[in-house]
Amino acid sequence: MPVRRSKVLLVKWIFENQHKLQTVRWCSSSLRYKELEESAQALEHVAPHAAAAAPDVKPRPYRAPETSFKHDDLQVTLAAPYQLQRKPDAPDLGFGKYFTDHMLKIQYHKQLGGWQKPEITPFEPLSIHPAAKALHYAIQLFEGLKAYRGVDDKIRLFRPDLNMRRMNLAAERSGLPMFDGDELIKCIKRLIQIDQEWVPHSETSTLYIRPTLIGTEATFGIMAPESALLFVILSPVSAYYKASDDGAVSIYADPSVVRAFPGGVGNRKVGSNYGPTIDATARAAQMGHHQVLWLFGPNHELTEVGAMNIFMVYINEHGEKQLSTPPLNGLILPGVTRQSILELASEWDDLTVKEEVITMDRVIELNNSGRLLEMFGSGTAVVISPISRMGFIDQEIYIPTMKQTRPVFQRIKDTLLAIQYGHIEHPYSHVIS
Amino acid sequence: MPVRRSKVLLVKWIFENQHKLQTVRWCSSSLRYKELEESAQALEHVAPHAAAAAPDVKPRPYRAPETSFKHDDLQVTLAAPYQLQRKPDAPDLGFGKYFTDHMLKIQYHKQLGGWQKPEITPFEPLSIHPAAKALHYAIQLFEGLKAYRGVDDKIRLFRPDLNMRRMNLAAERSGLPMFDGDELIKCIKRLIQIDQEWVPHSETSTLYIRPTLIGTEATFGIMAPESALLFVILSPVSAYYKASDDGAVSIYADPSVVRAFPGGVGNRKVGSNYGPTIDATARAAQMGHHQVLWLFGPNHELTEVGAMNIFMVYINEHGEKQLSTPPLNGLILPGVTRQSILELASEWDDLTVKEEVITMDRVIELNNSGRLLEMFGSGTAVVISPISRMGFIDQEIYIPTMKQTRPVFQRIKDTLLAIQYGHIEHPYSHVIS
Repeated sequence: MPVRRSKVLLVKWIFENQHKLQTVRWCSSSLRYKELEESAQALEHVAPHAAAAAPDVKPRPYRAPETSFKHDDLQVTLAAPYQLQRKPDAPDLGFGKYFTDHMLKIQYHKQLGGWQKPEITPFEPLSIHPAAKALHYAIQLFEGLKAYRGVDDKIRLFRPDLNMRRMNLAAERSGLPMFDGDELIKCIKRLIQIDQEWVPHSETSTLYIRPTLIGTEATFGIMAPESALLFVILSPVSAYYKASDDGAVSIYADPSVVRAFPGGVGNRKVGSNYGPTIDATARAAQMGHHQVLWLFGPNHELTEVGAMNIFMVYINEHGEKQLSTPPLNGLILPGVTRQSILELASEWDDLTVKEEVITMDRVIELNNSGRLLEMFGSGTAVVISPISRMGFIDQEIYIPTMKQTRPVFQRIKDTLLAIQYGHIEHPYSHVIS
Repeated sequence: MPVRRSKVLLVKWIFENQHKLQTVRWCSSSLRYKELEESAQALEHVAPHAAAAAPDVKPRPYRAPETSFKHDDLQVTLAAPYQLQRKPDAPDLGFGKYFTDHMLKIQYHKQLGGWQKPEITPFEPLSIHPAAKALHYAIQLFEGLKAYRGVDDKIRLFRPDLNMRRMNLAAERSGLPMFDGDELIKCIKRLIQIDQEWVPHSETSTLYIRPTLIGTEATFGIMAPESALLFVILSPVSAYYKASDDGAVSIYADPSVVRAFPGGVGNRKVGSNYGPTIDATARAAQMGHHQVLWLFGPNHELTEVGAMNIFMVYINEHGEKQLSTPPLNGLILPGVTRQSILELASEWDDLTVKEEVITMDRVIELNNSGRLLEMFGSGTAVVISPISRMGFIDQEIYIPTMKQTRPVFQRIKDTLLAIQYGHIEHPYSHVIS
């Protein structure tokens, strides 16, 4: 229902404001309409209730759709045999320490007509002008997804279309050029095929894919760059965290630090959301926590955990087991894993699933009354990461996540991994080779 | 008085908390004490009243002072004659479009003992690993200062010590290594001496100096980098803005967008403050404004203008002419020009000078009653930029800045330029050759 109403509003807005869009031809206008509608759908899909509240999902004019690069133009230069690196053993992988033999690069130069031909080259350092806007004004964004080697030895991606949508939304917010996500997926697939032996033969390791888009124009004006570089690098990875002895992680909720704010970029995967968190994360680490749980507002609302979205499982007022996560209010990254969990779990009869505001008081109250059962984080890098301890100002809160006999987090994790590693066929999975 | 009381509080805090500082030796502890005291002094100097209010100026433990690089270790490789570029004519300079023949680079590698030897090389692209944290997590900061060719043909810097302090505060906030500012100033002076013919022979152009510090460690963990690169590039520049016909600029105050937030990095010169502003600035430009005036809070408090701090001149309740600027509340970049204006103007008998909260309602009220005389921005890049028009939601506010017979902005600008170009000798000026 809200989807339909919002779509009507959108169409109304487009008709009312079409004269303001910098249309040059009807053709480009109708393209923009399509783009707008699709984006609105994507956002509503992620956050059906957010359309009214969050300022960022108000329909507003998109930049003219860029003519995208095309996979068909892809040029490949293979590494010479002497350039190939030895693959590390799976237990030594860590997270994002090793990189494969090849990379994908796509240049954008407005003055040369926009996107240039994609190219796959041997992995190499980037040559960047020292005045590039990406190095001074953080005009940069990234994505994270994974390639999984399934039980059938086939390689799969998990919902890459959602990463492409999010990447385009971040590009639009950052003054960086947009592109056709399907074309980038095709280029990424080709890159993975070339480096396919880097996809670990293991169900505890994967190949992490890092698409990155940076502004490369070398002038000091603080404005949208006329040159950019989209590149994709691949890294075989194992666990993101070194968990505590109980297999869970610990987070620190610090009300004195803020990750994102209304009118900002908290819901876009841009570099600016991460640099300012280093300091607080280091302080949390000194106190023995893995990461910071970012709170917002006077009621200490839970938002997210930087590398994860956050979920809790508790017994609700009706005595039902309920899975909850904070709504996408513009301050929270719309996680692909988060969305998948909400979709999957909403089909389970024994669980109530809800996006709802969660305050620290509520967490403490539920925990003190014995109704809080589990807390966990979700994300592409961490998959599902159970949380057993929270620091909050001077309190230590112990959550019985690891004491449940059949925990929800484990069921969700098993389901996700079963899809990702091809134990079950599912539309979320894209087999690539 | 607040300075003294705050210093007492600081010393008290240090004694009470010294056990928490990760001291290994008395020696390093006393160094840290010195560092703390100096930083507190620097901050109080910038914002005498902010010590109590702003969360960021609460004394807190600095990281152990890094062993700094030394100017004495500087290695110079001069460009070959064929590498030297033709210098553009002054009218064509623009802002930050041309770069000189040499640059300064200083590598930091924790595993190699920290800062390496500074080197001056021919200007060249940087070779950056595609996983460098600067490109993904905006672990990056910069500074901006200028070298002026004086009427005596001597080259001067303007208060470079303040830029070095601010750069170190930004480094500390960003998990990047700190250094001895005096050593960097000496290295920068050498760089300018080598490229001295690039300092324009003109009083409307200068050589802009851009020190930049980026995290270069090539791993995906969101944490302080173990490798970094400090580099300095030089660009001959003329005016920052192309002003309107009346010689002034126009700004747009958009309450729906927010630049900085308490608990964030608004008072540090880090890339993350700039990338997220591109979009709003582009929209303001579409409406014919030069920049965005960033507001904060339900009362629409004026903060700053991105590339400038903001000032206004009005007739106060006592019938005096008053120069006002918003206080440094943690959301505003502590500008070197801003601080210099406050210091210089406070010695003028015919002007009351005040840091005070300024709301949009107050601006409109003063303007409607004919008491608002001038509004202008200040910054290293723009020097002094008079403002004659403001957009605010659906209002257009015309400010009589250009209609004053002897405007304050012009007097301030003349004073600053007289110091910068050596018409008068002043302690703010550092003659370098």
